[in-house]
Amino acid sequence: MNDTSTREPGRTGVWFVGARGSVATTAVAGAAAVGAGLVPPVGMVAELDEFADAGLPPVDGLVFGGHDVTDTPLPKRAEQLAAAGVFPPALLSGVEAALRAADREIRPGARPAPDRPQREAAEALTADIVSFRDRHGLDQVVVVNVSSTEPPAAPHPAHHGLTALEAALADTPHVLPTSSLYAYAALRADCGYVDFTPSPGIRLPALRELAALRGLPYAGSDGKTGETLVRTALGPMFAHRGLRVRSWSGTNLLGGGDGATLADPEAALSKNTSKRSGLTAILGDQVEGLTHIDYVPSMGELKTAWDHIAFEGFLGTPMTLQFTWQGVDSALAAPLVLDLARFLARARGDGATGPQEQLSFFFKDPVRADGSPAEHRLVTQFETLRAWYSGDGR
Amino acid sequence: MNDTSTREPGRTGVWFVGARGSVATTAVAGAAAVGAGLVPPVGMVAELDEFADAGLPPVDGLVFGGHDVTDTPLPKRAEQLAAAGVFPPALLSGVEAALRAADREIRPGARPAPDRPQREAAEALTADIVSFRDRHGLDQVVVVNVSSTEPPAAPHPAHHGLTALEAALADTPHVLPTSSLYAYAALRADCGYVDFTPSPGIRLPALRELAALRGLPYAGSDGKTGETLVRTALGPMFAHRGLRVRSWSGTNLLGGGDGATLADPEAALSKNTSKRSGLTAILGDQVEGLTHIDYVPSMGELKTAWDHIAFEGFLGTPMTLQFTWQGVDSALAAPLVLDLARFLARARGDGATGPQEQLSFFFKDPVRADGSPAEHRLVTQFETLRAWYSGDGR
Amino acid sequence: MNDTSTREPGRTGVWFVGARGSVATTAVAGAAAVGAGLVPPVGMVAELDEFADAGLPPVDGLVFGGHDVTDTPLPKRAEQLAAAGVFPPALLSGVEAALRAADREIRPGARPAPDRPQREAAEALTADIVSFRDRHGLDQVVVVNVSSTEPPAAPHPAHHGLTALEAALADTPHVLPTSSLYAYAALRADCGYVDFTPSPGIRLPALRELAALRGLPYAGSDGKTGETLVRTALGPMFAHRGLRVRSWSGTNLLGGGDGATLADPEAALSKNTSKRSGLTAILGDQVEGLTHIDYVPSMGELKTAWDHIAFEGFLGTPMTLQFTWQGVDSALAAPLVLDLARFLARARGDGATGPQEQLSFFFKDPVRADGSPAEHRLVTQFETLRAWYSGDGR
Amino acid sequence: MNDTSTREPGRTGVWFVGARGSVATTAVAGAAAVGAGLVPPVGMVAELDEFADAGLPPVDGLVFGGHDVTDTPLPKRAEQLAAAGVFPPALLSGVEAALRAADREIRPGARPAPDRPQREAAEALTADIVSFRDRHGLDQVVVVNVSSTEPPAAPHPAHHGLTALEAALADTPHVLPTSSLYAYAALRADCGYVDFTPSPGIRLPALRELAALRGLPYAGSDGKTGETLVRTALGPMFAHRGLRVRSWSGTNLLGGGDGATLADPEAALSKNTSKRSGLTAILGDQVEGLTHIDYVPSMGELKTAWDHIAFEGFLGTPMTLQFTWQGVDSALAAPLVLDLARFLARARGDGATGPQEQLSFFFKDPVRADGSPAEHRLVTQFETLRAWYSGDGR
Repeated sequence: MNDTSTREPGRTGVWFVGARGSVATTAVAGAAAVGAGLVPPVGMVAELDEFADAGLPPVDGLVFGGHDVTDTPLPKRAEQLAAAGVFPPALLSGVEAALRAADREIRPGARPAPDRPQREAAEALTADIVSFRDRHGLDQVVVVNVSSTEPPAAPHPAHHGLTALEAALADTPHVLPTSSLYAYAALRADCGYVDFTPSPGIRLPALRELAALRGLPYAGSDGKTGETLVRTALGPMFAHRGLRVRSWSGTNLLGGGDGATLADPEAALSKNTSKRSGLTAILGDQVEGLTHIDYVPSMGELKTAWDHIAFEGFLGTPMTLQFTWQGVDSALAAPLVLDLARFLARARGDGATGPQEQLSFFFKDPVRADGSPAEHRLVTQFETLRAWYSGDGR
Repeated sequence: MNDTSTREPGRTGVWFVGARGSVATTAVAGAAAVGAGLVPPVGMVAELDEFADAGLPPVDGLVFGGHDVTDTPLPKRAEQLAAAGVFPPALLSGVEAALRAADREIRPGARPAPDRPQREAAEALTADIVSFRDRHGLDQVVVVNVSSTEPPAAPHPAHHGLTALEAALADTPHVLPTSSLYAYAALRADCGYVDFTPSPGIRLPALRELAALRGLPYAGSDGKTGETLVRTALGPMFAHRGLRVRSWSGTNLLGGGDGATLADPEAALSKNTSKRSGLTAILGDQVEGLTHIDYVPSMGELKTAWDHIAFEGFLGTPMTLQFTWQGVDSALAAPLVLDLARFLARARGDGATGPQEQLSFFFKDPVRADGSPAEHRLVTQFETLRAWYSGDGR
Repeated sequence: MNDTSTREPGRTGVWFVGARGSVATTAVAGAAAVGAGLVPPVGMVAELDEFADAGLPPVDGLVFGGHDVTDTPLPKRAEQLAAAGVFPPALLSGVEAALRAADREIRPGARPAPDRPQREAAEALTADIVSFRDRHGLDQVVVVNVSSTEPPAAPHPAHHGLTALEAALADTPHVLPTSSLYAYAALRADCGYVDFTPSPGIRLPALRELAALRGLPYAGSDGKTGETLVRTALGPMFAHRGLRVRSWSGTNLLGGGDGATLADPEAALSKNTSKRSGLTAILGDQVEGLTHIDYVPSMGELKTAWDHIAFEGFLGTPMTLQFTWQGVDSALAAPLVLDLARFLARARGDGATGPQEQLSFFFKDPVRADGSPAEHRLVTQFETLRAWYSGDGR
Repeated sequence: MNDTSTREPGRTGVWFVGARGSVATTAVAGAAAVGAGLVPPVGMVAELDEFADAGLPPVDGLVFGGHDVTDTPLPKRAEQLAAAGVFPPALLSGVEAALRAADREIRPGARPAPDRPQREAAEALTADIVSFRDRHGLDQVVVVNVSSTEPPAAPHPAHHGLTALEAALADTPHVLPTSSLYAYAALRADCGYVDFTPSPGIRLPALRELAALRGLPYAGSDGKTGETLVRTALGPMFAHRGLRVRSWSGTNLLGGGDGATLADPEAALSKNTSKRSGLTAILGDQVEGLTHIDYVPSMGELKTAWDHIAFEGFLGTPMTLQFTWQGVDSALAAPLVLDLARFLARARGDGATGPQEQLSFFFKDPVRADGSPAEHRLVTQFETLRAWYSGDGR
């Protein structure tokens, strides 16, 4: 691919880091179900009327592959998810062929090799993606990270510049955290990149430099699917009405693999920082309150969040708002992942490079070009997205 | 007044219909408290940084008067409200002089006179407002309706055109519902007009014709203070994410005078229609669910609303969001009433006439120039307001 | 059967009025699943340790039949319920045989015959039950009403005494409401009777007289499965701590057949009266607040109830408690229906006759021997149940 | 005093450990207000009809004193609490005399003296209490610990027996944690003792031995005022209906002094252990879920708790119950503290000694005579209390 003068994104592949996880599995199954007309495209932003003329690659034309370190077959994983309520079991038979096809395109993920330079692992990953693109005759591939959340990255001098990074990778085993290794491999394979997790990924300056050098677009990070989605819808209400939020407290209860990962305080730290940033941007930094993430295994794929907001009205009158959100994370994330692949592919078709701020709508902690404050207000983010893809906002 | 070529709104009076009610009383007390620096301007939109250069009349320059059919002195009413938790009792001494001053400017409201043409009542109301303006040397007066909600108006042929209306008023006792009689009197006194209730008020075509004829601005209706405020903040989240809302149900518990009024099913009908319109505009008309308003006397001035939203995500996965809002209606409404008087005065200073759509941010059911769908999304309404008063949006 | 000197309840049949409804279908499926050890007996009171020695008929020995006016086969109905989330679809194959067996024992229910004396309909119903008992060689049959809620009964002089009733039935088409006609038929078939609905059923004095005459036990009415269950658990907390409840408001959202029935204001009246009685008994009659039942078709079998309780503590300090209950009514009711059949059968084996007050634990509006106030506190009801079946409480 | 043959508790003093805290201040103010008939006795268990003939000392006959390490005058403290919403400011003038009288009876509390045997501190505390009793001619004094929660006690060999304890106190500065030092001093002053906190207090075996030796009654620990109160009301509902609770999660938001104390993870550990014990006793130990206590300073005296309970019904159907409790801890605790003093005084009048299990109704973690499981079900605890004080339950 890569004649960026064309406005058509072309035939598009989606390569998942974490391809056997619940989000990727649901995305593959859902793309097949929606593509075949088995279900309406509920939850898919790209299918809204506002984007009917945006020139996005069609959902039924996407080709899937990816990396993963586990080996549960996708059809088996889909059965588990259906039993857990992520989608109706009745859909399984209609999407099984698509799941098998994607399953054949999943390659073993990166595992630490303690005594080998990390570049070797990177090159193997890159080769997997290039082979996928070539074998399917794709115009472009978008790499989307939907693997488990990592702890914040241990600092390394080579993270700050591309030259130092290339040198370090050439002779050191542990330079990049795993999520960033995948991002590096994606860029080397000439792919746009989306970080759907709060992991370090492409955020290291050296990787951003590489993306700029190669003229590749990227977006992230941390998909805004539940509590934070509601927070960035509600937060502006207080700000724009001049109501003074005194405290905003939250408790999240979740089982599933994500819950187990976030029960690790280190990983939770990444998540909490990411979750809090939107509130601070909208309401300022004087708001009290903690956000808990509790691992409750019996909750399975269901996530419940309770938020309590104490605020002051006119003349100091105390008031409160509480909300309880009961959602299924994978079913919320999967359509957004498909959206992101399509929106990023389209942007690349238009020659966009670097951080794609018009995709802030999808993220808890949007990457942006410089240190300016990100827009976190949900409706404003949507209007930016809409305008960009209608050609008004660029 | 009324050299509309100046951009300064000038010295501004606020005339309340329902001047002894809890909203007006809190507004007068609050304007004094904020004006004197006793409390910060929490809850006042006009005091946000976004409007620092908008040329609004200052809050401490507003002069208050109004009509009411009861005769409880404002200082007494303020004591009752403080005891009920609407504002801190410690504020009372600092605002007593202001309450007394406003109290002296309250005149008896319109009472049905079964055997006199309704024009006589209108002329008496108009004369009260003109006298208030003259005695205080005001550049303009904004009339704001904060009286109790009326039932939907009984249709009358004279509602449809100004000529027929004037003729009917000249010889018939019952032509206009009370709220519309006040609106008529306000326009005849050459005043801008704000409907903070869902009552018919200025919405009758004949009155809109009169406002156009006289070049007067108006805004309304039904202040968006609680449940509906939250609904128009949350609704776009579902719409923009493509999530399919199946049902949106609500229950409001409230005591106080408003609760007693709305316990009347006829009056509640006005309110419910108004409350529902925002949801339908944002989410379409396929959403199931009722909205209840329960009169619970022991709740006093506190209003509690619970909303339950059932929605479908990707592949039909069922999810829910619930919220509970606990607010004090008068403390939410009072600063908005002051905001509206100031924003409308400013608009008039700029020569604006007719329905002021840029003020939709404040209303459940915004009046507009024609039959086009109103914008109900809260953040979008705010951006329109901001742009208009910075000169960008006109 | 009917040698009441034995303490063994004997081989027991359960005859459902409303045998193709969701409660009866779930009960039949569940009895089979629990009986076969496919699932643990969650939700079944009779299987608690406290009743291990109570001599109840075993769940896997129950034989099912019943009346219904619809003809959807039970296996089909079970499939619908499984798809709606009432129980896991994986259970279906294991209980299909049991569903088919019960299906063969369902007879057409009573339909109004405008020009025939009502006794004819009663005799046909009685004959169905007797035939069921004889063909299966059962020691006794318990008739359980799980059909749709009726409106309050139109008064009729013959309701007040058995002699008048028998005379009226002999020559009048419309004497008894349908639920009472079934109760009459059950008693004439020499069966104990359980009213799981708030319908008039056996509550008419003439029918209670018939039960006494024939020495038959009965229990009811209106199964306590959701909001009221929680209310009678929480209510005593306020009463016993001397906390003054000012208002208790509730909103129920439900779809399904029951929701549609209760959308009829007449039927809802039966329900609301029944729902409120427990609160009044526990907290007195000074508690403000309404209880709404909203029909929201898209909720399907799920029922959500929100309750808001405003109370005063020491020195008048205002406080609140809110709860949200999300349950599946049929899955809550079905095990209780099985419990009741077993507990009533056991009581009859012991020679108990008339209203079985020890079963108050199961009902919103417990029938009792005389006009004395019913015990509504849940834990006290449980202790009474436990004591009775351990022999201590009689 | 101490002719235990009389059934009259006699003239009773209440000695608070933490006498200037919010609970003690509210108790003193409230006893005066209720005693003078200014407010009804809402929230006072001892004033329920059930205890009208129990021979409790009247609330207006109680005499108050205590220890504290701070020196804010009680009338000042009461003003602060009234401003924070714990009770109405209008009550202040009517209770000021009572607050002043109690203030005169407050003595400096125990402070660590690093180089003096701890017995010296104990003797000074005992002397304060004895002097109070003598000067007021009281028949008995009940000592009630309402001071801040301590962390779990550091183990010390002398905690296990009275002989070793007396020896250690005679020559060692740090033997007992502060709460236990007060309990020791109370017993040496011949007083009954109530632990309203989860601090170690009287629970050390050596102190229980001392109480037995001196024939003194005691009760505790950790007043059941909010979330745990609701939990022990709701928990039995699940247990008695055979519903399987999978997880019970809770988040508490509170400001005030108690919030700051519990922000210390060590102190919170005492609290959490105490909070959890009731659930485990009622539902078994297989229930997942955490309980958070968040310090949110701006919440002031208000405490909000949200609990989420996920449970299984028949055939494994998942359901949930959530509740939100909004209470004022001091206003919940104060009347119970008065109740406990009166119930314990009455028990002592009857010659009761050792742990008073009939008072379990008031506590999260009831002390009892031996290792047998405590009764945590709220209604059952109430019935035990009622029966004991009517003479049936002993």
